[in-house]
Amino acid sequence: QIVSAALYRIRARGDLAGRRIVITAGPTHEPVDPVRYLSNASSGKMGYAIAAAAAAHGAHVTLVSGPVSLPEPAGVGVIHVTTAAQMLEATQDAFATADAAILAAAVSDYRPEQAADHKLKKAAEPIDNIALAENPDILATLSQSRGSRVVIGFAAETDNVLENARKKLATKGCDLIVANDVSRDDSTFGSDTNRVTLVGPHDETELDCMPKEQVAEKIIERLHDLLEPDEPL
Amino acid sequence: QIVSAALYRIRARGDLAGRRIVITAGPTHEPVDPVRYLSNASSGKMGYAIAAAAAAHGAHVTLVSGPVSLPEPAGVGVIHVTTAAQMLEATQDAFATADAAILAAAVSDYRPEQAADHKLKKAAEPIDNIALAENPDILATLSQSRGSRVVIGFAAETDNVLENARKKLATKGCDLIVANDVSRDDSTFGSDTNRVTLVGPHDETELDCMPKEQVAEKIIERLHDLLEPDEPL
Repeated sequence: QIVSAALYRIRARGDLAGRRIVITAGPTHEPVDPVRYLSNASSGKMGYAIAAAAAAHGAHVTLVSGPVSLPEPAGVGVIHVTTAAQMLEATQDAFATADAAILAAAVSDYRPEQAADHKLKKAAEPIDNIALAENPDILATLSQSRGSRVVIGFAAETDNVLENARKKLATKGCDLIVANDVSRDDSTFGSDTNRVTLVGPHDETELDCMPKEQVAEKIIERLHDLLEPDEPL
Repeated sequence: QIVSAALYRIRARGDLAGRRIVITAGPTHEPVDPVRYLSNASSGKMGYAIAAAAAAHGAHVTLVSGPVSLPEPAGVGVIHVTTAAQMLEATQDAFATADAAILAAAVSDYRPEQAADHKLKKAAEPIDNIALAENPDILATLSQSRGSRVVIGFAAETDNVLENARKKLATKGCDLIVANDVSRDDSTFGSDTNRVTLVGPHDETELDCMPKEQVAEKIIERLHDLLEPDEPL
């Protein structure tokens, strides 16, 4: 597996050869107890497509994936995590030696304040409400310490999509926000197509509805433009 | 699709030919808003394996499935649902004309009391806690009105597995509880094997750890014994 991934990268000779990119995908599960959890709708398809596209362009890709049911993309190193805290840790580790991060995961912004270590029984331990705590903000955390590294985030919104995406770009301090309106059937969780707008500090590019593989290709093209040129050999 | 399913059943000529069985599988998602939800760990593999086994024995199978990422079993009619309320309705509809129900779904026993119609924004609408309401109990509901129909339920437990299964059998009024200890690696959510005990009113059968397909076969064999013989032709 390691050898075939290495061969894959050597053969790729793409325009991202030598670049190290960390990509997050899927939801996170925030446990109430060993059986129940709080989560976010996400199939992981968008992030997996970006990982596959980046690898096809020759990048060294680390995919930090929440719980999904998707095959691992060829030539990509996958780290499986469950919670937002685990995703932050794995993503920070990979980002330490990376050139860029594309954060496509639908991270739960809240977690149950306490997770029970056994299945709560309805009769003996009824759950009237779940007290929540805020999860770490992976996009903000990486953006704050990014230096010259590129960080691309996502904004899944049901209302005021562009306005929320612009606000997110400004407050988090990343290079680009991929905004999508998840209230539309052709760009929602689990669908094979997506309709996004790439929101940068100086420009906004509205893409047509297209397969997630093509959206991934557009994002990788933009990443290529955002990366500073390599030192000359 | 309909024709191939019909041909499949005609060809099957199995020991459950002419029997109508409703099977539930997977988790349910209970929305907080269009993005966030409360759920239960469940891959759906156990319920899908039971549906496939029942169809292979010649039964007319309706599979009521929560959100999973599994291919639909051949020769099985699948109804896709999201919430426990939807699962109850679809299961009751199918049970009205069925001979038996096998309830393998990991139904959320709670749902958020209110589901927002838009994605709640952390800054403007912070979520300190989620107030919960009890969901309908599908196993109890079907068992109470089952008459001579067979009802088989599941108990996924982390502690006092058999004791909880016996209690469940007695209080719900079903024919059999399939008890499994989800704190073990070889019988937990998402794994391909399971280790269960079949808990009936007069006997308990502890099965070895085996692939979920074989567990499904054992459950279908037991279902066959529980169904009263057909009227002679």
